[in-house]
Amino acid sequence: METQFLKWLLPQLNKDHRLEVPPGDDAAVLRLPGGKRTVVTTDLLTESVDFRFSKSSVDNDFPPPASAYQVGRKAVAVSLSDLAAMAATPEAIVVSVALPQLGGRSLAEELFSGIQEEVNAFDVALAGGDTNAWDGPLVISVTAFGSIRPRQCWRRDAAQPGDLLVVTGPLGGSLLGRHLHVAPRCREAIVIASRYPIHAALDISDGLSIDCGRMLTASHVGGTIELNSVPIHPDAITLSEAGHTHQMTPLEHAMQDGEDFELLLAIPPEAAQELVQADPRSLVPETTMQPRVIGRVTENLDFCGTTPDGQTKRLEPKGFEHVFQ
Amino acid sequence: METQFLKWLLPQLNKDHRLEVPPGDDAAVLRLPGGKRTVVTTDLLTESVDFRFSKSSVDNDFPPPASAYQVGRKAVAVSLSDLAAMAATPEAIVVSVALPQLGGRSLAEELFSGIQEEVNAFDVALAGGDTNAWDGPLVISVTAFGSIRPRQCWRRDAAQPGDLLVVTGPLGGSLLGRHLHVAPRCREAIVIASRYPIHAALDISDGLSIDCGRMLTASHVGGTIELNSVPIHPDAITLSEAGHTHQMTPLEHAMQDGEDFELLLAIPPEAAQELVQADPRSLVPETTMQPRVIGRVTENLDFCGTTPDGQTKRLEPKGFEHVFQ
Repeated sequence: METQFLKWLLPQLNKDHRLEVPPGDDAAVLRLPGGKRTVVTTDLLTESVDFRFSKSSVDNDFPPPASAYQVGRKAVAVSLSDLAAMAATPEAIVVSVALPQLGGRSLAEELFSGIQEEVNAFDVALAGGDTNAWDGPLVISVTAFGSIRPRQCWRRDAAQPGDLLVVTGPLGGSLLGRHLHVAPRCREAIVIASRYPIHAALDISDGLSIDCGRMLTASHVGGTIELNSVPIHPDAITLSEAGHTHQMTPLEHAMQDGEDFELLLAIPPEAAQELVQADPRSLVPETTMQPRVIGRVTENLDFCGTTPDGQTKRLEPKGFEHVFQ
Repeated sequence: METQFLKWLLPQLNKDHRLEVPPGDDAAVLRLPGGKRTVVTTDLLTESVDFRFSKSSVDNDFPPPASAYQVGRKAVAVSLSDLAAMAATPEAIVVSVALPQLGGRSLAEELFSGIQEEVNAFDVALAGGDTNAWDGPLVISVTAFGSIRPRQCWRRDAAQPGDLLVVTGPLGGSLLGRHLHVAPRCREAIVIASRYPIHAALDISDGLSIDCGRMLTASHVGGTIELNSVPIHPDAITLSEAGHTHQMTPLEHAMQDGEDFELLLAIPPEAAQELVQADPRSLVPETTMQPRVIGRVTENLDFCGTTPDGQTKRLEPKGFEHVFQ
C-alpha cells in the first residue's frame, strides 16, 4: 500500500537545507541557491523502450537486462545530463512512478536505492514524488532542477560559423551495458563553463548525428564532421563485430547510437584547442572525460562528413527517435 | 515521429515572460516571481486507474470514459490542486508522456489542447516536457511550480486542537464524471490565505476520511467530524441509488470517494465562522466554493464521527489507495 511504502520511505530521505517543506505534504517548498532562475528538465523512462528487466529470448540477450536499482540510477542520471548540457548545477529532483501491482513494493525499494545513490553522488535534494500502481509495466519520470549563475547557461541554438565541434568522450555501443551506467557530465560542464567561452551545448542522448543536426538546425548554421576524428568507443567495435545490428560499422555506431550522454560543444577555435589539450583531470579530478575536436560549424547550412582522403558526403541525422503515428 | 510532433507543437506554445529559455533546449530556464522559494509538486496519471478511454462493458458504462482532451486538463488540474493546497500561485508546469505507438500522434494533439486550455485558464507557463512512445497505454506526468510570499505557505501538519475543520464544497460521487472536470481551488486558496489565519490545509484527492486522517496524523492531533454537517454532493446520492458501488450510502460516498479536489482546512474557530458566513463570491468572483464547518480538531488523538443523536463512533480512514505488493 502507498501509505505503508511512504512510512518506510520518508524517514530514509536525506535532510537537506534546500527543502523548506520536505516531501510528505501536498507539495515541497524548495529554496534554491543562485538567484531567481531555475533550470528545469523532465524525462520519462518506460520498460521495454529504455530498459528491460527480463532476458531477451530473441537476440542472444542483447541489450542486457537491467536491475531496478540501475533503472533508478539511470532515471536520475539522464535528467542530470540535461542539466549538464545547460551547465547548470543540479539541486533537486522529484520522481513519479507507475509500479506494477504485483512485485511493486520490492521494485519501489530497489528503484529508491538507485535514486538515492545518484542523489548522493551529485548532492541533489529528493524533493518529492508520486507513487502509483497499475496493471502495466514500470514507468518512471524524473523532473530535475538546477541553478545557474549569470552568463553560465548553455543553450543549443547559438553555435557560430567557425566554432569547433567538441565531444567529451568516445561514442557508440552503449547498448552493450553503458546505457545502464550513465555518467552525467555535470561537474565537467560547470568547470568548462567557468573557464571556456562555449557558444552552444547539448548532451548526446539520441545519437551524435541526430543531436548534432539538432544543434546546427537550432543555430541556423551547418557543420562538417571529420569522420576520422570521431572518437569510437571500444563497445562500438564489439557491437559491430557481434552482429546484433545489421552489420553497422563502428563509425556508424559512434555516429548513430544513443545513450552515450557525452556533451557536444560548439567552441571558438582557440578555446576549443585549449580545452582538448588540457589534462582533463586538472579540470575535474577523476573525470573520465576526453574532449576531442570532431568538426567545425559552417555558415553553409549543409551537414556533411569528410573522410581522410578528402571526400565529402552529406550526413543524415540518424539516431533514436520515438515513433508514434 | 517525435521531431515532427515537436515541429507542430513548439510554435503553438504561448510566449511567457517567466521562460528565459523556452521549451526546445535540453532544459528550460524559469524566472519565477516571489523570491527564492519554489513550490513543487508532481503527479502521474495512468490509463485504467485515473481514466479510461473505452466504455466499460462490465458495469453499465461506469465510470464514464474520458477524452484525451479531458485527460490533458485533468493531469494539469490535479497538480494545480496540490499547489492550491499550499496556497501557492501556479507559475509553470512541465509534462512528460508515454504515448501508445499507434494513434499516439492524434492522442498527443488532443492531450495538448486540454493542457493548453488549463494552462491558459490559470496563467501558467508550459515550460517543457518529454514525449515518448511505447507499446503500452497512455501515461502522463505533470510537475507544477508555484510561488509563495512569506508566511503564505500552507502545510498539512500544523492543525491545532480547537481548530474547526472546513471543506470548500460538497463531496462524493465524483466518478459519475466530475473526476474528469477537476476545478482546482487555486484562486480561492490564495484569497483565503490572504484573509484568514489557516493552520493546516490539503486537497481532498483520495477521500475525506483518509485525507482528514492524514492531516490529523501529520499534525499529531485527533479530530471529530459531525457526520450530519458533511456536505453531500448530489452525485453521491445518484451514485448511491445507481447501485454500482455495493450499496454505499450518500454519506459514505462523501466520506470515502476520492477526486473531489475540494480543500480541507483547519482554522481557528472565529476565523472559520467568518469564512463560512462570508459570501464566497465576495472573495472570488464566480467561484463555486461553498465552505462548510464539518468538525473540530481535538487534543485526543482519536478520529471520530458524531451523529445528530449524540452517538460517537471511531472513523476508519477509508478512500483510494494505490495497492502494490
